[in-house]
Amino acid sequence: MNHQSHNDTIIALSTAPGISAIAMVRLSGDNAIDLVSKFFKGKNLKSAESQTLHFGNIIDEETIVDEVVVGIYRNPRSYTGQDLVEISCHGSDFIVQTIIRLFLEAGARLANPGEFTQRAYLSGKIDLSQAEAVADLIASGSAAAHKLAIKQLKGSVSNEISLLREQLLRFAALIELELDFSTEDVEFANRAELISLIQDIQKKIHPLIASFKIGNAVKEGYPVAIIGLPNVGKSTLLNTLLQEEKAIVTEIAGTTRDIIEDEMIIHGLNFRFIDTAGIRETTDLVESMGIERSRQAIRNAELVLFIYDGTEEKDSFNKLMDEISLGNKLWIAVHNKSDVNQKIILDNEIQISAKHQTGIEELKTHIWKKAGGETIDSNAVMLTNHRHYEALINTSDALVNVLKGLENGISGDLLALDIRTALDYLGSVTGEISSDEVLGAIFSKFCIGK
Amino acid sequence: MNHQSHNDTIIALSTAPGISAIAMVRLSGDNAIDLVSKFFKGKNLKSAESQTLHFGNIIDEETIVDEVVVGIYRNPRSYTGQDLVEISCHGSDFIVQTIIRLFLEAGARLANPGEFTQRAYLSGKIDLSQAEAVADLIASGSAAAHKLAIKQLKGSVSNEISLLREQLLRFAALIELELDFSTEDVEFANRAELISLIQDIQKKIHPLIASFKIGNAVKEGYPVAIIGLPNVGKSTLLNTLLQEEKAIVTEIAGTTRDIIEDEMIIHGLNFRFIDTAGIRETTDLVESMGIERSRQAIRNAELVLFIYDGTEEKDSFNKLMDEISLGNKLWIAVHNKSDVNQKIILDNEIQISAKHQTGIEELKTHIWKKAGGETIDSNAVMLTNHRHYEALINTSDALVNVLKGLENGISGDLLALDIRTALDYLGSVTGEISSDEVLGAIFSKFCIGK
Repeated sequence: MNHQSHNDTIIALSTAPGISAIAMVRLSGDNAIDLVSKFFKGKNLKSAESQTLHFGNIIDEETIVDEVVVGIYRNPRSYTGQDLVEISCHGSDFIVQTIIRLFLEAGARLANPGEFTQRAYLSGKIDLSQAEAVADLIASGSAAAHKLAIKQLKGSVSNEISLLREQLLRFAALIELELDFSTEDVEFANRAELISLIQDIQKKIHPLIASFKIGNAVKEGYPVAIIGLPNVGKSTLLNTLLQEEKAIVTEIAGTTRDIIEDEMIIHGLNFRFIDTAGIRETTDLVESMGIERSRQAIRNAELVLFIYDGTEEKDSFNKLMDEISLGNKLWIAVHNKSDVNQKIILDNEIQISAKHQTGIEELKTHIWKKAGGETIDSNAVMLTNHRHYEALINTSDALVNVLKGLENGISGDLLALDIRTALDYLGSVTGEISSDEVLGAIFSKFCIGK
Repeated sequence: MNHQSHNDTIIALSTAPGISAIAMVRLSGDNAIDLVSKFFKGKNLKSAESQTLHFGNIIDEETIVDEVVVGIYRNPRSYTGQDLVEISCHGSDFIVQTIIRLFLEAGARLANPGEFTQRAYLSGKIDLSQAEAVADLIASGSAAAHKLAIKQLKGSVSNEISLLREQLLRFAALIELELDFSTEDVEFANRAELISLIQDIQKKIHPLIASFKIGNAVKEGYPVAIIGLPNVGKSTLLNTLLQEEKAIVTEIAGTTRDIIEDEMIIHGLNFRFIDTAGIRETTDLVESMGIERSRQAIRNAELVLFIYDGTEEKDSFNKLMDEISLGNKLWIAVHNKSDVNQKIILDNEIQISAKHQTGIEELKTHIWKKAGGETIDSNAVMLTNHRHYEALINTSDALVNVLKGLENGISGDLLALDIRTALDYLGSVTGEISSDEVLGAIFSKFCIGK
């Protein structure tokens, strides 16, 4: 947040960069319409009504920068709640940069990531959980992730949290009232009811907390590392899974040096597959840098596909397994080239031929099940946001303290403090309670222009 | 063009793909507004006025696909001259694909590349040369290219051509009139005036034809290959020119295998620099594939930077020069590491140190001059389009035939035929004369959504 004004005029490219038919530059702020009208040759924008479109030229002194269409939104009828102008120009980076430079020189400021949405939050158009859903919605790459983000945008998480918070708030108020009458030793808040309420709240919080692991995987893509000795067919498997020639495949061991990564949706769930350099002793500098990156990829993965081609001895296989320290990670043994080399190495192996595309569908379904695909209930409210997850864990801990305090018969003022802590954590999800640092951290994750 | 209708509703993503705040999907056609209103929950779009914006949800049966803003343009007040709808949704590929699929299932058709602009041309909103300028404008990556495209969009080439064509047309009409009175042996068209006019036209066409080579380089980026023996510092030079770590640099000869390419603007002119694998005998399969690509890069370049590091013998240098067959290409000898190895190999060499960034500005200016940078007159009308270039060459050839015919006193009907040929070629630039094949070829080069 810093101490920047929230009324000055910000500008950013809001569409993706790159050559395209149309690009859209947005400005928001008290002065946005006046500023654009200075460089717009066409209708007088100062008298333009809200929610209207106007064709004309953007002019830099005498030079035409581009033919554009300008969309006018007047405060409060806009995304940000402020005056907002959308300039649709031709999709050339050069033109976009020229237009942005023009307005920066005239006094606009480059928007921070998420600053348009931040202004929407500050003007009360959306709450914090909904603002975060906007970022998730943009990033959603699968039906499951999209559904969760839309639900959150429409308030599913906010409503769930607000309901719990309201009930708890009532008790906090009663207990704080007792404090005002502390000399009189009255109890406005029924202790038995409070215990029962806290148990109810915990019953609702815990499934939400538990939903985070899969919710997060739905959102981010479930990371799967493809590892194995050189030349067992890791890159061929990646290409077969993705149905494209993503990785260069040769018969030369050590062809893959960089980490090659791509996403793929299996049964509506998004997976990130990471092809790695084959792990072996090597004196090649570039290759050994690649192997170090393979080890890193394994550390970051939730699931490891261990590929071998059926020519290995069981002992050397186990040695490699030990060496790369899978730890507690989920893994699947994949026997590639099983049409040629039929010796079974592990009992639970999945037999495939990446080259001839046999066994691939079984492998995909197996990956999906391992990742917990069967356990996803698409109608449940699900946490996808790390900040919400931590806030609810902290809420739960604070509530445990409240219960302990009630057991030990601690004083009302200490009890009130613990309840307030729980309330603050709950409120931080929707932004009813928020600090500048928290807001800054949230909106900095947005793309610029949103 | 095929025999598709030009009134049915087409749809495409018009902004660049990728994660972003906003993406815009456009529909154009007789039925566009009705079609969108079926899936839009908000204001009734059927009664919406032209040039207005409307917030609402796109709904697939009961499911919300996204919160969107819809822009309405009614025939003829739109880019295409037809009813046109712009849907601004969140910039997620998943959402964009879902929206497009929804409308395809409801009867819209995926737009061909450039089909929106093609409809603008067919409805008489712009001529063909202006339509082509739209594509150039989008692709323009430098101030010079942008200026040429804007001028062409605003009709500079069209006006120049139309003027010439009108004058010639008058003569064609007079000569064709003579044919109607052929038994009476009259001459409506003054032959001396015709000769003088044709000479005038040639004087205007030839500079346009000559402007193409540099105009095309301005538009496409002037291709410069960086070649030399392994390890003379080619990748370091590329990184120094681009001021970024584009290519991986190690002390190991043969580090670069793929062709690494990037653009850079020098004094307002766009250059495409192509870093290549060092040329040497090698048994490494991947490296030798890279070297073959280097030879290809040289074939495609207009200018070759030949890099050496001052340790070479003049003979071996000449041998390599022979081997890679520069032919008639422009080239610059660049002596890298000149701070360390000071032996001069060629008299006209440019001495630099890519690592210590000395001599780089001199090299850049030298490259710019070699490419003809000094000869560009930014106010002149300049051809940037290969189709216009060929049309004007054909026009000029036809006019030469007319002059020859006049010298030889050929009959009026043959003369009229040659003038008509010249007129047709001239008219093809602006699209006054056009065939379906020509139109198809032009618009297929556009990006989809324009």
